[in-house]
Amino acid sequence: MRIELINTGSELLLGRVLNTHQQWMCRQLADCGYEVARQICVADDGPSIQAAVRESLARSDLVLTTGGLGPTSDDLTRDLIAQMLGRPLAPDPNVLARITEYFAQRKRPMPASVKVQALVPAGARVLPNLHGTAPGLAIEIDPNPFRDDKTRSWLILLPGPPRELRPMFSDSVLPLVLKEFPLSQPFVCRTLRTTGLGESMVEEKIAGPLQPFLSQGLRLGYCARVGEVDVRLVARGASAAAIVAQAEGLVRRLLGPLVVATGDATLESTVVQLLTDRKKTLALAESCTGGLIAHRLTNVPGASAVLICGLVTYSNDAKKILLGVRQETLDEHGAVSADAAWQMAEGARLRYAADYGLAVTGIAGPGGGTAQKPVGTVFIALATPQQTIVQEQFNPFDRETFKFVTSQQALDLIRRSLSD
Amino acid sequence: MRIELINTGSELLLGRVLNTHQQWMCRQLADCGYEVARQICVADDGPSIQAAVRESLARSDLVLTTGGLGPTSDDLTRDLIAQMLGRPLAPDPNVLARITEYFAQRKRPMPASVKVQALVPAGARVLPNLHGTAPGLAIEIDPNPFRDDKTRSWLILLPGPPRELRPMFSDSVLPLVLKEFPLSQPFVCRTLRTTGLGESMVEEKIAGPLQPFLSQGLRLGYCARVGEVDVRLVARGASAAAIVAQAEGLVRRLLGPLVVATGDATLESTVVQLLTDRKKTLALAESCTGGLIAHRLTNVPGASAVLICGLVTYSNDAKKILLGVRQETLDEHGAVSADAAWQMAEGARLRYAADYGLAVTGIAGPGGGTAQKPVGTVFIALATPQQTIVQEQFNPFDRETFKFVTSQQALDLIRRSLSD
Repeated sequence: MRIELINTGSELLLGRVLNTHQQWMCRQLADCGYEVARQICVADDGPSIQAAVRESLARSDLVLTTGGLGPTSDDLTRDLIAQMLGRPLAPDPNVLARITEYFAQRKRPMPASVKVQALVPAGARVLPNLHGTAPGLAIEIDPNPFRDDKTRSWLILLPGPPRELRPMFSDSVLPLVLKEFPLSQPFVCRTLRTTGLGESMVEEKIAGPLQPFLSQGLRLGYCARVGEVDVRLVARGASAAAIVAQAEGLVRRLLGPLVVATGDATLESTVVQLLTDRKKTLALAESCTGGLIAHRLTNVPGASAVLICGLVTYSNDAKKILLGVRQETLDEHGAVSADAAWQMAEGARLRYAADYGLAVTGIAGPGGGTAQKPVGTVFIALATPQQTIVQEQFNPFDRETFKFVTSQQALDLIRRSLSD
Repeated sequence: MRIELINTGSELLLGRVLNTHQQWMCRQLADCGYEVARQICVADDGPSIQAAVRESLARSDLVLTTGGLGPTSDDLTRDLIAQMLGRPLAPDPNVLARITEYFAQRKRPMPASVKVQALVPAGARVLPNLHGTAPGLAIEIDPNPFRDDKTRSWLILLPGPPRELRPMFSDSVLPLVLKEFPLSQPFVCRTLRTTGLGESMVEEKIAGPLQPFLSQGLRLGYCARVGEVDVRLVARGASAAAIVAQAEGLVRRLLGPLVVATGDATLESTVVQLLTDRKKTLALAESCTGGLIAHRLTNVPGASAVLICGLVTYSNDAKKILLGVRQETLDEHGAVSADAAWQMAEGARLRYAADYGLAVTGIAGPGGGTAQKPVGTVFIALATPQQTIVQEQFNPFDRETFKFVTSQQALDLIRRSLSD
């Protein structure tokens, strides 16, 4: 089965927005056993959209498009597709009622232009939009005139805004795909997220030992991002679940504490979960990461129950007043030193009555480096009920990468301590 | 002139990574007057890459590819392209010397596999890689056998890692494009970033008055992201600079303080700049944004000189101890209240001797909402040397969107105060 994804939108090709649809939709499909063969991005104009859809339909069983279903003049997708397929558009009373209700609920006047969103091509199935006004449209094209063998294809049109598209995709599109294109055999996918080693080192540790599983049909994939490497274990067939489970067990034995999360979990959600499970609290003292560790932890619902406070102490004064770092330490060793990190972590823990105090101090750059302490120098400290430990790291990257990698190392330090 | 961009990498189609290359490269080209007509993403396998490159070359004057130039077994692009174009690969002694030096500098042994990166297709130009080992390759295909009219095309192969690709693109690719495909007339592009109004409201304010400029050749574009709308003014021709400058002046008069930055500047960089220029300092007190405001500000180099401290005060205790919020206020009005926000901002300003104190308190959700204070309720307060002001906002979005929109409103509040 071949799937293609077409993202429409001139703002994508002008580089004004990031194409988050691609990653999100491809991931949803891949986790269910469907791989997208090609993704295409074209501008909002008629010829570009029609050409791309025609070419994709000629090659594919399923074509998904995003964008161009709204009410403004550059929302052309619905019209162009209906025209190309020779399917007249007609207003759908249920959709119109839903749009009218949407505005009434929000006590806003309904512009006449939005009614265009109730137009549905003949024979199309309407996919409800719970968070906006433009419904999705699913069209079975059988026979498909663009294919040499005329076999049927599905074409599914989805709205552009992520908060409209994502629930529609999960609630309507995935069920339709599973029903219309059932997998011929069971599919099992498991992703283990690791941090602390580069891709080639992870591969070196597991590729050899996994060899027997590969010959049984396991597919092994790696994905390296800054500061993390995913290991993806996939199998199809009657014994898929057993193969993946055994392979996962082996990877976990080989990588041990390098595995920080599975599936959609993250390092930060793992830390919040561990703190919650152990009924422990955390106070943060961040210098060079500037609030990123607090931001990542507070992205996790429920973080408020375990995070007592986060202190972004850039200045020496803030380190002294808020954390009790000693002036002599700053004079003798500087704010970027193992001693300062130690005192920051202990100050955070003791002053704010937390079970754990986690602190980072370093030089993010681009300025501020010296020969002895170049840009990228970092000290990370963790104060626990039992002890305080300090790690020195060297992260000579651009500012934002430096912040992320350092936050990753700090979160991993407390994760390992909580996992012991 | 037609440009297409091909991103190779199975991890993109499995949704494991976000395609940041697309946005970044499209933006660089658009800002110089070149628009990408189509972007395509294909997997790492031979037939997919060759088919995509062949199709793009048949349509385009310039084709850019990313990825697949490294030393591992799934890095196939160089080989496949050389084979497709019938250009034998030969080792380039300069590239090999550079790779050898790269490993020597890092005192790491050089694996034999990396030598493949020194292979260059006959007639290709080598684009130096200052941050890695795989050089880029630029190939003039003249005549181009894939085009009906056989006119020449350029094919440029770039490495996948962003920190290798980006400097190579700026230093080598853009100059090559400007030289080989000179613009027939001057091009001027100006992007004004706004916050505080939705796309349709921004359009309503400026589209009519800009009409006369449109008939003189101005192109007007909008790009809406969560919490911000960009207005893009573009013109070509001898009077392009004058038209864009006049249009910008008009937009600035019409939108007034809604314009927060131009070009690559951001709301947060504007705030850091304003604080720096006015020699003022800031202390933050964040509850529901959880450190995001501090994180955004500290992404800006030089933030350390103006940000005294950021306090992430989730718990009531932290609000009392760190900011002096009164127990009676918490009892009577709750932590999410105008009074609490007021005291947080004043506490941040006075206790940490900052010129400005900026505070947010609200309900990010998904839990914690009540009938009176539903999820999305936010109070933002700013304490200045002259006065303290509080704004109530309602941001009923998912947790991460809520945090971003709230941080945007808070940063805009201090920006407006500093701009007065």
